[in-house]
Formats: sequence, structure tokens, C-alpha cells
Amino acid sequence: MKKLNAGILIIGDEVLSGKTQDTNSNFIAKKLIESGIQLEEIKIIHDQMDAIIEDVLKFHNKYTYVFTTGGIGPTHDDITSESIAQAFNQKYCYHDEAYKILENYYPKGDFNEGRKKMARMPEHAKLIPNPLTAAPGFIIKNIYVLPGVPSIMQKMFLNLLEIIEKGAPKKTITININLFESSIALDLKIIQDNFKECSIGSYPYFNFVSKEREYYSGGVNIVVSSWTLDSLDEVVKKIQEMTSLLGGKSSIV
Amino acid sequence: MKKLNAGILIIGDEVLSGKTQDTNSNFIAKKLIESGIQLEEIKIIHDQMDAIIEDVLKFHNKYTYVFTTGGIGPTHDDITSESIAQAFNQKYCYHDEAYKILENYYPKGDFNEGRKKMARMPEHAKLIPNPLTAAPGFIIKNIYVLPGVPSIMQKMFLNLLEIIEKGAPKKTITININLFESSIALDLKIIQDNFKECSIGSYPYFNFVSKEREYYSGGVNIVVSSWTLDSLDEVVKKIQEMTSLLGGKSSIV
Repeated sequence: MKKLNAGILIIGDEVLSGKTQDTNSNFIAKKLIESGIQLEEIKIIHDQMDAIIEDVLKFHNKYTYVFTTGGIGPTHDDITSESIAQAFNQKYCYHDEAYKILENYYPKGDFNEGRKKMARMPEHAKLIPNPLTAAPGFIIKNIYVLPGVPSIMQKMFLNLLEIIEKGAPKKTITININLFESSIALDLKIIQDNFKECSIGSYPYFNFVSKEREYYSGGVNIVVSSWTLDSLDEVVKKIQEMTSLLGGKSSIV
Repeated sequence: MKKLNAGILIIGDEVLSGKTQDTNSNFIAKKLIESGIQLEEIKIIHDQMDAIIEDVLKFHNKYTYVFTTGGIGPTHDDITSESIAQAFNQKYCYHDEAYKILENYYPKGDFNEGRKKMARMPEHAKLIPNPLTAAPGFIIKNIYVLPGVPSIMQKMFLNLLEIIEKGAPKKTITININLFESSIALDLKIIQDNFKECSIGSYPYFNFVSKEREYYSGGVNIVVSSWTLDSLDEVVKKIQEMTSLLGGKSSIV
């Protein structure tokens, strides 16, 4: 089976300044894994033409799908569409269909210059419909260009998922263990070495009851996942056996 | 004045799988801007040696500071330290001081192999103390290597901020306007063109009262910021004037 993968490019000064917590990449990441598409990389960059062009082209060459969010609105700092047109040496011009959609959407007299700008995109773009605020995203080559506002981005992305090629979802099981990560490290490595078709991730957490080191409790979530194995049962069983041999308790979460 | 900038490298399969929402980069981003350090890029990559080596070296050459989070724990999937040692052609070995800290921290007999692994780092690393769970991060060249668990990362990062060179904080003012972004786009561009020393970002939001497009309200947050201007008052005044000429209301938030 063809392996499908993806990269996400978050375009936005507001994320790099810490003003906005990016949640778009997490939303897309979850949907991709359910759709059998391996997310390889997320990159957050400035609203800056050179950076956008460079990374769009790099991602274009590396991944099956590239999703960008941000920078396709009506204001001067929205330069994603123009940058992507330049990246692929296409004219940056009014898209007839997008223009009509926006013209119909806004009351007569309200289709101002800012709004018209949202109909400008690379010459050969294909539209991604926006069921909430009309202004479409677009597809060019393997680049899927989405807005930054999460509620709108999410709707558009879900519609997009309906029409792109998907793979078999990644199988994943999470096991919670009430032991410290360090005490299971050696045995877990042996299990990983014996089951190379799956990846075993270990994610500790700590509950600080007081500031004194003596008073914290913690545990670890073990995430077993595989794109190829039909069943993860055997791996999970090994981890459960290991836990009980080490005097701990495990539960599937 | 010397311009200080930074890149953040989040190392973690759990973020790319969507299982974990990264909050570390947002925490660091906020602190950097207050510290006069311009964050240029955030990249989220797999726990994979080649990728870590490549990006650490790239960031090393591009930025004043590079912050990494994740992958320095006790388990087999924690490969950040070893990768960074390789990136700089240094031995990956026990760090005497780190070993002592950990040996003292754990009760006798509990200093197992997994825990010992956390004392292994590039030969010439300098430690970043961990006041919560002892296992230190480290500094090598301009790379600051931090853990992925947010509560621990935050404490360590705040201590780190005390000792690194900082610049003048970026001045930022946010103005909320009850108009649609598109209706201010043209005037805002003129203001931006007249005040090139500051950057003006425009961030729309929408409150969907119903699914029908006729029933949503919205507005826009304008973020005016500058590393160099002493005062942003004049720009803010222009934006307030523009808003009231367009029949809207603005308030500083």
C-alpha cells in the first residue's frame, strides 16, 4: 500500500509571539492519524514571503500532503496566497469562481477591496469551500491552503478529508502504569526490540503534591502504535506482564 | 544593540500523533518576547536521530538561542541527548556532576539503569538544574536542552532565563475593534505603510450565533508591536481615529 504522509505549516506571527496558542496543528494531527496519513512535521513560521516560499516548496517535495493555516484574510499582513503563487511561478490574480462566491455572499455595496482580496490566489488554484464565512481556501499541487481561525479551519478541513485519499488508520493503544518511567525503561526497551513493527512511546507525568521532591507521585502512559500490525494485543500483554512483575498496576485507557 | 533571536525545536512523536497538545512552545514564546528575544521559528519533529541532528545543526547556525524540549528521559525512545552529542561530534557519556546529582537524589538501590541514562549527555555539556525531579537538562554551544513534561520544563526554563543575555522587551498594544476585518483592511494598510518600524497584525474572530451565515457577529484584534519604537501611541491613535471614522468602536485590551 502507498504510504501517505503530511506536513503542516502554521503561518502566523501571533503564534510566534506567544499571543495565540496554536490549536490548528493538533486538530489536523488527530484527524490525519485516524485517516492513515502520517504527520511528519509541523512548522510555525512568520508571515514573511521568503520564509513561506522556501518552506512551501520544501514541504511540497517531501510530503504527500501539505496543509497550511493562516494568512489568507483581507488585510495587508495576509500574504500566504501571494507567496504560494510566487512559489509555483503562477500569476496571483482574481479567481473567477471565488470572486462570484464572495460577491454573492456579501450584501450589495459591502463587497469592498479587502473582501475582494480574498478572491485573489494562484492562477490555477482549485477552491476549498468555506461553509461558514464564504471566503474559500484553495488547493494547488499538493498544498492545501486553509485559514487560521480555528472554527472555520476545522469545518473546511473536515470537508477536505472527505475528498482526499486516505490510508488505513494507525492502530494505537495507551496503557497507564502507576510506576516511574525509569523503573520500566530496561524491560520496555526489550519489548520494543522484539516488536519492531510497532513503536512504543513512553510519556511520564508527575503530580506535585508539594514542592518537596519527596511528595510527588506520578506514572507513565505507554503508547503502543503501528501502521502495519493487525493486532497490538501481544505487545500490550507483554507490557501488562512486565508491569505486574515490577509490582505495578496497568490499565488500558 | 545586538539582535537576539531564537528557534524552538519540539521533539516528540506524541505531538505529531495529536495525542499531546504542545504547550511548551507557547510558554517559551511568551517569555522570549518579554525578554527581548525574537522567536523566529517553532518546529515539531519525530523522536528520530537523523531529523534531530539535521535540525539542531540548522538552528544552531541560524539563531542566537535554540531551545529543545522532549526526549531526555530514561526510556528507549529518549534519544535527544545522544542525537545532539552526535550532531556536535562529542562523546555521549556519563556527566560526572549529573551522575552525582541523580545518585544523591534517589534512595539507595533505586538508582537504576533507566535513571543512570539521564546522566548521559554530550561530553562537554553544562547542566541546567531541575529543581523538581533532579534530572538536569543541559547546554551545549547555543543549544538549551529541556525536558518535555510542561511543569518541569517551565521551572527549568524560568531559571535559565535568569542567566542568559536578554534584550529590550518588544512593545505591544492590542486594540479590539467591533468591525469586520475586511472593512478596515485598506486604511490599516495605509497606517502600516506610514509606520514601518512597527508591525501591525490583524486577527479576526467570529462568534457563530447560528449556523446561518446571517447570524454571526465578529470583530478583530489589531496587534501593534515594535522592537525599536519608544512609543506606539501615535500608531494606536491613528487606528482609533480610523475605527471611529468607519463607524466602529475600539478599545485597548
